Amino acid sequence: MQHYPKHLQSLIEAFKRLPGVGTKSAERFAFDLIDWKEQELDQLGSLIRITQQQLIPCNECGCIQHDNACPFCTEPRIASKTLCVIASPKEAYALESTHAFRGLYHVLGGLISPLDGFHPEKLSISSLSRRIKDLDIQEVVLALDSTVEGDATALYLKKELSSLPLSISRLAFGLPMGSSLDYVDGGTLARALQGRSKF
Amino acid sequence: MQHYPKHLQSLIEAFKRLPGVGTKSAERFAFDLIDWKEQELDQLGSLIRITQQQLIPCNECGCIQHDNACPFCTEPRIASKTLCVIASPKEAYALESTHAFRGLYHVLGGLISPLDGFHPEKLSISSLSRRIKDLDIQEVVLALDSTVEGDATALYLKKELSSLPLSISRLAFGLPMGSSLDYVDGGTLARALQGRSKF
Repeated sequence: MQHYPKHLQSLIEAFKRLPGVGTKSAERFAFDLIDWKEQELDQLGSLIRITQQQLIPCNECGCIQHDNACPFCTEPRIASKTLCVIASPKEAYALESTHAFRGLYHVLGGLISPLDGFHPEKLSISSLSRRIKDLDIQEVVLALDSTVEGDATALYLKKELSSLPLSISRLAFGLPMGSSLDYVDGGTLARALQGRSKF
Repeated sequence: MQHYPKHLQSLIEAFKRLPGVGTKSAERFAFDLIDWKEQELDQLGSLIRITQQQLIPCNECGCIQHDNACPFCTEPRIASKTLCVIASPKEAYALESTHAFRGLYHVLGGLISPLDGFHPEKLSISSLSRRIKDLDIQEVVLALDSTVEGDATALYLKKELSSLPLSISRLAFGLPMGSSLDYVDGGTLARALQGRSKF
């Protein structure tokens, strides 16, 4: 049987490091590059190489800096005394797009998942406590995934922050907008019932 | 609303050029790179940049060369007088892994698809005719997708090659191995019936 040329095999292995990319997708990507223009290859390759120099996390909140300044650590947000805990910088943009939150962010850098080697010590929890004290935060919103890892992290944080004088809330669980009851899973429906509100 | 930093936006746009990658996947890829090691970024970036220098198509069949020689244009394969027409170099490896074909290959460089700008002139059909004559090919196997584009290309090639003294065959259509009749679509079932063989 004929094996792939070495360069192609290396490309496939490297693409497989991307999230959600298995062998089949990586092979598709690698073969597709053969038809790309030299300039397009050069552009993607160069962009990837300089990622670490270009995308620098904010020392305070962990979000990505724009032009050497954090767009989220601003005066009006500090004055709001509200802080939203997120797992990765990506979530800040999702929350911003809702226009429903105008406070500070704090990136944990992951969720507790002992099997994947993510123990609480790996997360930026001590800097979270320090920021809450320094900035006199009144409310912490836990915007974490509704998964086992998200639940574990939320419970851990609740315990860790229990000694501080602040209110801790977590995003609501319930029906996603536009969903039909027929197609919503039992777990979601149970949480939606538990969290029902007066109408 | 906060927009992504420029570098992140450029990365997302570049990733979207990969096949099957939409905005959501491209965003996931771009944010994931933030956690990659400098060395890993450098490796993937460099591999992509030198792809065109490393993966050189064979002048004869269009498959990818290994160490400056085509692994498929070999003497025993030429002697087989059989040539398999494929759309892209990737398919040669899939066919090789079956161990069921030991002839030559010919890469068309795509399938006829007028809406996508793939007219017959874009495909390497004239070099296919030349090779058939030069190599005294006796059988041409059309190993093309079972899609509208694959069908159109197969019919076009059948007409183009009809004046040459050779047998033209196409891969069989029917049930995939291990499939249950309950889950096979009607089109496949109809083709499987048409192509039924004495048992």
